[in-house]
Amino acid sequence: MFLCDIGNTSYHFLKDEKDYKEDVNSFDPAQIKEKIYYICVNQKVKKILKDLSNWIDLSQKIYMSSYYETMGVDRIVASMAVTDGVIVDAGSAITVDVVKDGKFIGGFIYPGKNSMRKTYKDISSALNYEFNFDLDLKTLPKNSVDAISYGFLKTLQSEVLSHNMPIILTGGDAKEFKKIFVDAKVDENLIFSGMKKLTF
Amino acid sequence: MFLCDIGNTSYHFLKDEKDYKEDVNSFDPAQIKEKIYYICVNQKVKKILKDLSNWIDLSQKIYMSSYYETMGVDRIVASMAVTDGVIVDAGSAITVDVVKDGKFIGGFIYPGKNSMRKTYKDISSALNYEFNFDLDLKTLPKNSVDAISYGFLKTLQSEVLSHNMPIILTGGDAKEFKKIFVDAKVDENLIFSGMKKLTF
Repeated sequence: MFLCDIGNTSYHFLKDEKDYKEDVNSFDPAQIKEKIYYICVNQKVKKILKDLSNWIDLSQKIYMSSYYETMGVDRIVASMAVTDGVIVDAGSAITVDVVKDGKFIGGFIYPGKNSMRKTYKDISSALNYEFNFDLDLKTLPKNSVDAISYGFLKTLQSEVLSHNMPIILTGGDAKEFKKIFVDAKVDENLIFSGMKKLTF
Repeated sequence: MFLCDIGNTSYHFLKDEKDYKEDVNSFDPAQIKEKIYYICVNQKVKKILKDLSNWIDLSQKIYMSSYYETMGVDRIVASMAVTDGVIVDAGSAITVDVVKDGKFIGGFIYPGKNSMRKTYKDISSALNYEFNFDLDLKTLPKNSVDAISYGFLKTLQSEVLSHNMPIILTGGDAKEFKKIFVDAKVDENLIFSGMKKLTF
């Protein structure tokens, strides 16, 4: 089975259980001639794929009333891959979605690492630092780097842990966030598990 | 006693227990001839005040080893006004500082309302909303406005409440944040209480 998850920056493929990425601006989807199942949040790419008959849009097969209208299809499909847990998808935004007994309960959106770094920098040049993911989140900070790192990370951690459910980490920054969600399972191909459920 | 707390956007005065503000770009501090105690985080204004002998810089009287070098003087002085509690100063940034038995324990910095609104908008035009402060933070959202409002507010709330201490709200957005910290005491002149302690 050939699968593709298309975001704002890349095509993420899964073929024969191997995944790889292509840049959204340089890759031409017409070069793929096989049958391929996809989901896509990129409006520009969506238009191109509509004319390619071997590209099959899995979003058509989602029973939307279990979710909400403006919810990203990537969040929906990732939720389908989980029976009980909190899914933390850490990318340009961090989406946090809770699934209980296979049912989507709700979720929220938090800024991703690069967005939040820019936010602090724009507030004050004195806050222009990379985040410290190795920070001890049990101790209140007494320096500027840790004060913003704690502000970004501890607040998210407190909320996510409060659900007392298994945590599944996915998305481009999953490995880095594993440092603050030490018991989480990292599954970078979570979305493909959800997509497979839709192909039947 | 005449007091002034100078930030990046305004002079905040307290005279005869009444407070008022002046714009930092249009107000001329030389027009004040009386003795006035101030703190200032605005580098440009700081330079002007150095040449005005009736303007007395209270930051000189702070015993810095109880705090940390790059900590804003406004956070330090607000901390001095509290014996036990979490101070949430909601302005262009939100600073959260914990004081126990009159001792500063540590604190963190979170983006303010306007900064965070811009952050979400820049991630995606689909997230270009005003925050909903009336949101029920006990329920996980199922729409976009609430998904970002929860992301901004619930994460902060979870962390602040975890300290199990009295909460003191101050800063320009204090009243709005009272909606999510319902048991908090709002004290918009907290910083002046701290400044008074330094004048003796």
